[in-house]
Amino acid sequence: MSEQAEAAPAATQEEQKTEVAPEENKDVKENGTGEAEPVAEQEKEAPKEMRAVVLTGFGGLKSVKILKKPEPTVNEGEVLIRVKACGLNFQDLMVRQGAIDSPPKCPFILGFECAGEIEQVGEGVEGFSVGDQVVALPEYRAWAELVAVPAKYVFKLPKDISHLDAATITMNYTVAYILLFELAGLSKGKSILVHSVGGGVGQAVVQLAKTVPDVTIFGICSKGKHEALKNAKSPIDHLLERGSDYTSEIRKVLPDGVDIVLDCLCGEECNKGYNLLKPMGKYILYGSSNVVTGETKSFFSAARSWWQVDKVSPLKLFDENRTLCGFNLRRLMFQQGGHEFVGKAVQSVFALFQEQKIKPLLDSTWALEDVAEAMQKMHDRKNVGKVILDPSLEPKPKPATPAKGKSKEDKKKQSSEEKKEPEEKKEEEKKEEKKEEQLTNGDSAGDSDSKGKENSS
Amino acid sequence: MSEQAEAAPAATQEEQKTEVAPEENKDVKENGTGEAEPVAEQEKEAPKEMRAVVLTGFGGLKSVKILKKPEPTVNEGEVLIRVKACGLNFQDLMVRQGAIDSPPKCPFILGFECAGEIEQVGEGVEGFSVGDQVVALPEYRAWAELVAVPAKYVFKLPKDISHLDAATITMNYTVAYILLFELAGLSKGKSILVHSVGGGVGQAVVQLAKTVPDVTIFGICSKGKHEALKNAKSPIDHLLERGSDYTSEIRKVLPDGVDIVLDCLCGEECNKGYNLLKPMGKYILYGSSNVVTGETKSFFSAARSWWQVDKVSPLKLFDENRTLCGFNLRRLMFQQGGHEFVGKAVQSVFALFQEQKIKPLLDSTWALEDVAEAMQKMHDRKNVGKVILDPSLEPKPKPATPAKGKSKEDKKKQSSEEKKEPEEKKEEEKKEEKKEEQLTNGDSAGDSDSKGKENSS
Repeated sequence: MSEQAEAAPAATQEEQKTEVAPEENKDVKENGTGEAEPVAEQEKEAPKEMRAVVLTGFGGLKSVKILKKPEPTVNEGEVLIRVKACGLNFQDLMVRQGAIDSPPKCPFILGFECAGEIEQVGEGVEGFSVGDQVVALPEYRAWAELVAVPAKYVFKLPKDISHLDAATITMNYTVAYILLFELAGLSKGKSILVHSVGGGVGQAVVQLAKTVPDVTIFGICSKGKHEALKNAKSPIDHLLERGSDYTSEIRKVLPDGVDIVLDCLCGEECNKGYNLLKPMGKYILYGSSNVVTGETKSFFSAARSWWQVDKVSPLKLFDENRTLCGFNLRRLMFQQGGHEFVGKAVQSVFALFQEQKIKPLLDSTWALEDVAEAMQKMHDRKNVGKVILDPSLEPKPKPATPAKGKSKEDKKKQSSEEKKEPEEKKEEEKKEEKKEEQLTNGDSAGDSDSKGKENSS
Repeated sequence: MSEQAEAAPAATQEEQKTEVAPEENKDVKENGTGEAEPVAEQEKEAPKEMRAVVLTGFGGLKSVKILKKPEPTVNEGEVLIRVKACGLNFQDLMVRQGAIDSPPKCPFILGFECAGEIEQVGEGVEGFSVGDQVVALPEYRAWAELVAVPAKYVFKLPKDISHLDAATITMNYTVAYILLFELAGLSKGKSILVHSVGGGVGQAVVQLAKTVPDVTIFGICSKGKHEALKNAKSPIDHLLERGSDYTSEIRKVLPDGVDIVLDCLCGEECNKGYNLLKPMGKYILYGSSNVVTGETKSFFSAARSWWQVDKVSPLKLFDENRTLCGFNLRRLMFQQGGHEFVGKAVQSVFALFQEQKIKPLLDSTWALEDVAEAMQKMHDRKNVGKVILDPSLEPKPKPATPAKGKSKEDKKKQSSEEKKEPEEKKEEEKKEEKKEEQLTNGDSAGDSDSKGKENSS
């Protein structure tokens, strides 16, 4: 082991020298143009800079900016990752609002989840090599072209898991896995009430729960998402409406109540769930952070929910045969040294993916530059499945600047594309954008209603 | 199914008529004398009465009496069991003190656990027949020669589980099984802190936990039990002393703390355990009842323990990644309809017994008449393993009445017996007692320090 540790960094630096250039070329080739010139030029102009999603101040979407930042250096115990796909999570919205415990000082690079390829391996790192395909759950800084991450937060990808798949499943399914199998002890025949079932973790919970026989799922979400969930064939047994009298609905199906309640700390309604618990039932509070106050009260109405006000007597749990769990991934990973525990859950999720027992539910992919729009979609609870940022994508045309070399024909083309199948559309868009980049040098105009690359597969 | 239900009671009554007499004879034969006369005579004198352990008022041992009570009648949904072995549990001591929620009115027959043979099957009962060997967890009335129990609290014994084994393992191992596998989610490599590790549930926890690889057990009990536990080769990894600074001891072995704490609500010290929990750790409160006040404060000092005073904020659990569970078997079974859930755990325990993964740890067996002494032993925390009452045993000689036909020779004999191996001793004592009974007609004198039939197998 120690031999390996000493040998690795030397090999790394050597490999890096020869690998970096071909790596850039490979990217360009993948874009299908075969013309390496523009990228190489950019590289020469600012060889040590990268694009990153930076939060310049807590608050609204205007504080989220795409800036050029120095490329990160790799410290001991870290690996440098060339990012190919970034996962958007609910907690990113909370961070933006400053609605978390001890937030970092602005400006800083956002993002807790990304997948990519290792470009450099720091000293003292074992088990990783340059060229490894990985997913990482760093504490911030994931939304950039490059990120240096402590190796303990990095997990190798099996060959059949793409960067897009990894960024889509890792965070949500790992949380869902821990909730269901480490905390709830889900087993055959049990019933679950899932709040915010339309969200990323909610959908992961549904898929994972259905790997266990005879599980009954009650899912609650806003009416607006019901059709999309039905279209996506999400196997929720009873889809209920946020704000409705769902307690009665559930009692009609299961008079004794449910075995498990998953409360993502997202609403003041959740306390109803506690009384729906059967004896031996488990109530699980999870989420990304402590919502104490938020700038948008309507969004963070959680502030008034029962769990912030009411304390629970342990004797009451004893009398009622109930369990109360709290789960906070961010704290577990970054403050409590729980990365090994999380790593095991990640491996379990990968195994289930390889057995095709779970399928990533992708909502849409966006360029880094379109992150504000992507966040807004999540804020409005309009996504069904994961929202992804892809640093290789070109931004959607913006309405503010007049188009250079962009004609009405281009707009028509775009409109006709909306009818195409998502996968096909994505591929063609990629080619189209590459072309545009060469024509317009990036600053292009377009439809202001552009919604990123929707994909409901 | 319904055919069976209708047929069963008819068969039962017929079988009962012919079965009862041979059954009595069989008992006598088993005692090794072959002389049925005394039992048969008793039967004629009071054909519809039975011996039972009756609580005549809440409080001390003097309120526990052996009385003749009418034989129970079998109601719809019940079975009548001829009791062969009764389990003593901590909750019986609490009931005696009146230190439980809504106790029944005195007088009533004590006992929550017994094993025996079905003598009669009530209307509407499916799945049981006369002659079935069973274990039962009734709500009181288990400590008698006969008990009528709702069939839902009765579990059939596999052929290779004796009445003694069943009364020894069922309650304790079922509780331990639920704690470890339904609530704590015990898995490979985890660590457990077990309070009152010398008790019945404590020892069951140790054995069950050791069916999982690489589990580390910290067990706490009074110094007085340490040697007995070592002699019994209980696989506790770190045996610690009640009242000592065990927190530091545990931190020396596991600086990060433990994964699971099992707190049987038996002492004010347990709150130290909460802070020993690792992230993702589970704190489980269990026990037999709500100890609010007790007549013997030193015994029920639990009254001042943290869980009765301090409420827990669910947000704190969320911040700390911790779980708080309550488990109360009595309430689950008798008030919350959890008998099916418990039944599954009982079956799991039986399976583990059959696979020889668990071995019943028997402390001692006693006649019904010696129940006070048996309870005192438990009260004094002097038992290591299960304390059993056997209705077929004759009581120990009492010191109060002068001995009839008992000489100094007898006393010497008894003293020499104490050096014998427990199994051998037990067998010989049985014979000896039978002899005595015939000589003295039951009312005999003896050593006041007699401690029942010790067995540390």
